[in-house]
Amino acid sequence: MNEYAALLENVRAKKPLVHHITNYVTVNDCANITLAIGGSPVMADELADAMDIAAISSAVVLNMGTLNERTIPVMLAVGKSANAKGIPVVFDPVGAGASKPRNETAAKLLSEVALAAVRGNISEIRFLAGLRSHTKGVDASDADLAGASDAKQAAKSLAERTGGVVAVTGAQDVITDGKKTVSVSNGVAMLGSLTGTGCMCSSLIGCYLGANPDKPFESVTAALLSMGIAGEIAHERAGHLGSGSFRAALHDAMSRMDASVLERRAKYDEA
Amino acid sequence: MNEYAALLENVRAKKPLVHHITNYVTVNDCANITLAIGGSPVMADELADAMDIAAISSAVVLNMGTLNERTIPVMLAVGKSANAKGIPVVFDPVGAGASKPRNETAAKLLSEVALAAVRGNISEIRFLAGLRSHTKGVDASDADLAGASDAKQAAKSLAERTGGVVAVTGAQDVITDGKKTVSVSNGVAMLGSLTGTGCMCSSLIGCYLGANPDKPFESVTAALLSMGIAGEIAHERAGHLGSGSFRAALHDAMSRMDASVLERRAKYDEA
Amino acid sequence: MNEYAALLENVRAKKPLVHHITNYVTVNDCANITLAIGGSPVMADELADAMDIAAISSAVVLNMGTLNERTIPVMLAVGKSANAKGIPVVFDPVGAGASKPRNETAAKLLSEVALAAVRGNISEIRFLAGLRSHTKGVDASDADLAGASDAKQAAKSLAERTGGVVAVTGAQDVITDGKKTVSVSNGVAMLGSLTGTGCMCSSLIGCYLGANPDKPFESVTAALLSMGIAGEIAHERAGHLGSGSFRAALHDAMSRMDASVLERRAKYDEA
Repeated sequence: MNEYAALLENVRAKKPLVHHITNYVTVNDCANITLAIGGSPVMADELADAMDIAAISSAVVLNMGTLNERTIPVMLAVGKSANAKGIPVVFDPVGAGASKPRNETAAKLLSEVALAAVRGNISEIRFLAGLRSHTKGVDASDADLAGASDAKQAAKSLAERTGGVVAVTGAQDVITDGKKTVSVSNGVAMLGSLTGTGCMCSSLIGCYLGANPDKPFESVTAALLSMGIAGEIAHERAGHLGSGSFRAALHDAMSRMDASVLERRAKYDEA
Repeated sequence: MNEYAALLENVRAKKPLVHHITNYVTVNDCANITLAIGGSPVMADELADAMDIAAISSAVVLNMGTLNERTIPVMLAVGKSANAKGIPVVFDPVGAGASKPRNETAAKLLSEVALAAVRGNISEIRFLAGLRSHTKGVDASDADLAGASDAKQAAKSLAERTGGVVAVTGAQDVITDGKKTVSVSNGVAMLGSLTGTGCMCSSLIGCYLGANPDKPFESVTAALLSMGIAGEIAHERAGHLGSGSFRAALHDAMSRMDASVLERRAKYDEA
Repeated sequence: MNEYAALLENVRAKKPLVHHITNYVTVNDCANITLAIGGSPVMADELADAMDIAAISSAVVLNMGTLNERTIPVMLAVGKSANAKGIPVVFDPVGAGASKPRNETAAKLLSEVALAAVRGNISEIRFLAGLRSHTKGVDASDADLAGASDAKQAAKSLAERTGGVVAVTGAQDVITDGKKTVSVSNGVAMLGSLTGTGCMCSSLIGCYLGANPDKPFESVTAALLSMGIAGEIAHERAGHLGSGSFRAALHDAMSRMDASVLERRAKYDEA
């Protein structure tokens, strides 16, 4: 069994409670993918409620996909509170670079909360790393994708700043903690034809981190391997049918993911 | 035709408008399951809008899954207004016991609104009944499940307080109005691997109650029989494929539910 | 290739960014259908965020399905800002006629924002056109459907007021810009058994308009042809299975829609 398979077994065994403050577009997908991998999802974004829920959670996922004035301070407060309790915080900077409130919220979270993991597309991570970015809404821009060979550099630069793990997801995923770097080549282009596959990656990271808090780098890698492999299985089974069947098959594959599949199909390299 | 089958035919014939003030995680599932059983869903949570919509509805479902300061007073106002108009109110106390705002909101609704039906998992109902509970987020805790034989006692205790019907859903569902008690043994464990199956039960209760307001106990029972049977059919057809296909098959089975299926497959006992 | 097929190819080629201020019930369906037809969805409803996002978008969709005090002024501000920049605005008046806030919001949008397209069911469009309407929640009422032959009159009357395109969707869709009128007979009744098929039509209109801003009438028609044809294909493949499979098949068909399918199956008439 490779080390990632062991981390998956921990998720299944511990069923970590993963608290999300997230957007209303993909929240249902995030809840179902959390259940599929073996976690227990809970969403709460009102201050007093979120503080209580965070206190009993194994991980917190902050996703700014549809941020608003009510929830931005809650993300900050919950993030700090989780830090104080040693609960790992995952940040998904949806649309960073695309608007002032997103940019400011991301900047605040980066400076005030210790982020165990940050996961975004190349446009978002480039922006957070202070590099030139061409964010176009919430999807990576073609201009930034053309420079995907820079993903490693952007991720490392951001990881040095956060002190945590940073992942850039795309055709090839790059995961780094500033020292070690791994690239994951599992996955299919069709994942980009569904909304929420990025958000779901962040939820999976929350599940793995929640069950394996002492292995942040490996947890992020295992999460992205899981999504990539589930995407491949879904594509083999239902890709020819279209995006609706592919979506169901993606959840199917995640719910049936096990150590042997993860071990047999994982494709990663030290980068 | 058993009495539950007759209630279903009323839902199909009357197409009751079911007003939800509910969470943003499972709201789409609630809308689609309402349509599948034959109701017409409408969601409105801004005070003036919700008051107008409630006034033309056949039932109101209050679900506190992602409550916030804006919507809590709306739930109370709409609940009272529905009471005044004789429109049945269903309460789904998601996460009761897990946070102060959830506990306080549940307490206010219990004391200020006449609840035709309350449906929750064993942790939530134990908490509302004033019994020791171990709520862990929004799913029933293992500690509480171990005491599931207490479901009947907790439900009866709460029903005496509300004067309405109380249902505890789980491996075996218990429904009581404080006098009569029925247990439903339809259903499959896989329903727990999807988010929103509890919320959908509450929506179904709203549909049955909306079409059969004079039969609250039987309506709640029919709703839980419907979900249990649909879950079994979905599991037979798609359970081996995984959670995504199971979800689609669950909606399939509900949309094709008819009196004969409900009659042939219903498994319930006076408890 | 008919003119509608050419418009579809523009959507696929340009991948327009379509900004939605929409409800939390069907938002995920709107995002996925936007991706399926070839657009890029983005949802943002906080003032500063929405203004920045709208500025980089190709079309804006305003859907008042779950309007609230925070988002109503944002819809107005974003609509006006889009007008100033020449970005087409689509309005989906969900539930117009059913509550005072919905009626007032619709009235404000009609008077203060230039609407490239308005799409609703017969109850909603009759209400906006100042005709007698029997809105029942968010679905068309039977009373209004009985008068569906009036759809053309209601749509023309509203189009004269807005100066844009108006579409009434139902068993037969009517599209008019006040001068030209087309009716589309593609589609199946089963589309009414899913939540969000109306909202998804409005998203598709946003995609077509975003890619073909100089062809508003033809864009709206192409969007409704796309939905009708996808509904037919989904029904042929999965209608017998039930609403869950039909839903997946609908997204499948939209993601596989191409110029030849659109050309071969389109059924429309000048009306």
